[in-house]
Amino acid sequence: MALISTQNDRTDLPLVVMPSIIESMVQPFREALPLLHDIARVRIYDDATLDGDVIVDRCADADAVMVIGFHVDDSMFDRLSDHVRCFSFGGTGVASYIDLSRARERGIAVTNVVRYGDHAVAEHTFALIMELSRRVGRLDAIVKSGRWDGLDGISLYGRTLGLIGFGGIAQAVADMATGFGMSTLVWNSHLHEEAVAAHHVTAVDDLGELLHRSDVASIHLPLTDSTTGIITADHLERLRPGTIVVNTARAEVIEPGALTRRLLRGDLLAGLDVFDHEPLPLDDPLRSVPGIVLTPHVAWRDDEAYRALSVQIVRAIAAFFTGSAFNRVV
Amino acid sequence: MALISTQNDRTDLPLVVMPSIIESMVQPFREALPLLHDIARVRIYDDATLDGDVIVDRCADADAVMVIGFHVDDSMFDRLSDHVRCFSFGGTGVASYIDLSRARERGIAVTNVVRYGDHAVAEHTFALIMELSRRVGRLDAIVKSGRWDGLDGISLYGRTLGLIGFGGIAQAVADMATGFGMSTLVWNSHLHEEAVAAHHVTAVDDLGELLHRSDVASIHLPLTDSTTGIITADHLERLRPGTIVVNTARAEVIEPGALTRRLLRGDLLAGLDVFDHEPLPLDDPLRSVPGIVLTPHVAWRDDEAYRALSVQIVRAIAAFFTGSAFNRVV
Repeated sequence: MALISTQNDRTDLPLVVMPSIIESMVQPFREALPLLHDIARVRIYDDATLDGDVIVDRCADADAVMVIGFHVDDSMFDRLSDHVRCFSFGGTGVASYIDLSRARERGIAVTNVVRYGDHAVAEHTFALIMELSRRVGRLDAIVKSGRWDGLDGISLYGRTLGLIGFGGIAQAVADMATGFGMSTLVWNSHLHEEAVAAHHVTAVDDLGELLHRSDVASIHLPLTDSTTGIITADHLERLRPGTIVVNTARAEVIEPGALTRRLLRGDLLAGLDVFDHEPLPLDDPLRSVPGIVLTPHVAWRDDEAYRALSVQIVRAIAAFFTGSAFNRVV
Repeated sequence: MALISTQNDRTDLPLVVMPSIIESMVQPFREALPLLHDIARVRIYDDATLDGDVIVDRCADADAVMVIGFHVDDSMFDRLSDHVRCFSFGGTGVASYIDLSRARERGIAVTNVVRYGDHAVAEHTFALIMELSRRVGRLDAIVKSGRWDGLDGISLYGRTLGLIGFGGIAQAVADMATGFGMSTLVWNSHLHEEAVAAHHVTAVDDLGELLHRSDVASIHLPLTDSTTGIITADHLERLRPGTIVVNTARAEVIEPGALTRRLLRGDLLAGLDVFDHEPLPLDDPLRSVPGIVLTPHVAWRDDEAYRALSVQIVRAIAAFFTGSAFNRVV
């Protein structure tokens, strides 16, 4: 059953269908839909499904499909491609969800969304750092258990943050660190001088040196062929005891097993949102690292990210039907 | 038994005794003691005690006493005042720990420490805000219990922070908020225009209006006769549902019972480090507030604050014995 449908009577307009949605996105999509007024009718199903037949069925008369949370496999693609003219994907890594060359061959448009979650991920990064430096979550549990023993915090003021990667997320983290009175070092394969200057950071040529000089080290590399495994066990050897290490990017940018082995020595403070295997297996040795803080790959998830995602998807479709291009991939 | 004693053989130098210390301060004091080289001998006892007789006994031949964690009551004062010439107190509210008029009458110097914990309290404030906005502590508990359900965060970027009070702590919090891309409103009885401009905040004349306009409201008032109960139930009525409310200052700046009654409605997000009664009683109704985050009055406690505190105490004593004044109260 469609939860939301707009401009039902306007059968002169093309139809956009979102066959599956997660609950947190319903309200942001509602707020974005006026952007399609007089451009397209919309039908959104709010009961999430991964069933290909259900999805195809729901999209039977769609001119465009909003794709969130499911893969458009080749069978689904073929069954939809006789009437769907545009797939609007709700994420950045669209190539893993829709066969782009197939779309190109059939002349079907594909859009994605970009940088919708920079602030969300940056804020989650700082939240992980602060849980390691101030232990509010642990203190809250102590007080709620009826005890009153405090813990000493670790000051961030005056300390050094090392950022690995320097895209939009890392730049937002750098600004936060400046507000905290930290100084920030950056390592990246390509660094734009203007960005380095604009965010008051210092470039470091050698990744091992960056890790050695950091009191807090945070990873913000995209996962590509050239970043896979780029952080090695040797690099991690350079970390000083007591360093706070945070990863909200992708586990695969670290040499397989190297982080776990380094953390199991027990002399670092680590906060991780991403893992080689998700959900994190119950027998994963990371769970045995003393004082480690673990979150279930949620860094991108907040109200602002959902809003930006919704607006971008809707704008991409509006652009498609009005003959302009926004976030076009194919 | 004295844990630390310096320049034992220099009986020509005056003796400084710290009869009681907490463990976290031992190392920072060790590092600060060279400031007394050739000025005074030091003896520090590391087994904390509140026993007046033990304290007096330990200070039997002291020329100066470092006072941390215990009250110098009148009996103790009288027994020490025949040989002690200076009390160096490790906190700001010295008048609650040492009778200053008595010190004045006897010609005994008293020193305190100032603003040693501004950054610590500001960082703890932001840690409370972030535990409410990102729930890292709760997510960590979820993952460690073997589950993988995420929670949506609340974005801080672009939101409005309202600061009640605008001393050193609030100014540090304002800088952090700027780094997060928040805009900051400030209410205070006296606002210095330069500070308002330097920290890029906007002054608001009415406390109720400040609370109404804030997505995050944080209290940073010192407790004085004029601030006691200054935040009333009527003010708290102006808070909008969903607002994050944080108090790392003093509970007594809020009208008694007003915050608890407001929070029990369950439509706000609250993080508290200070309470009317500490330790927080097990039957305190605040414990029933949905989603509340509680820490045991630890905001001031971090390595940097301990270091600043230790250095100030030692500098105050060095100044006293070399004929200058630093942090002198009497």
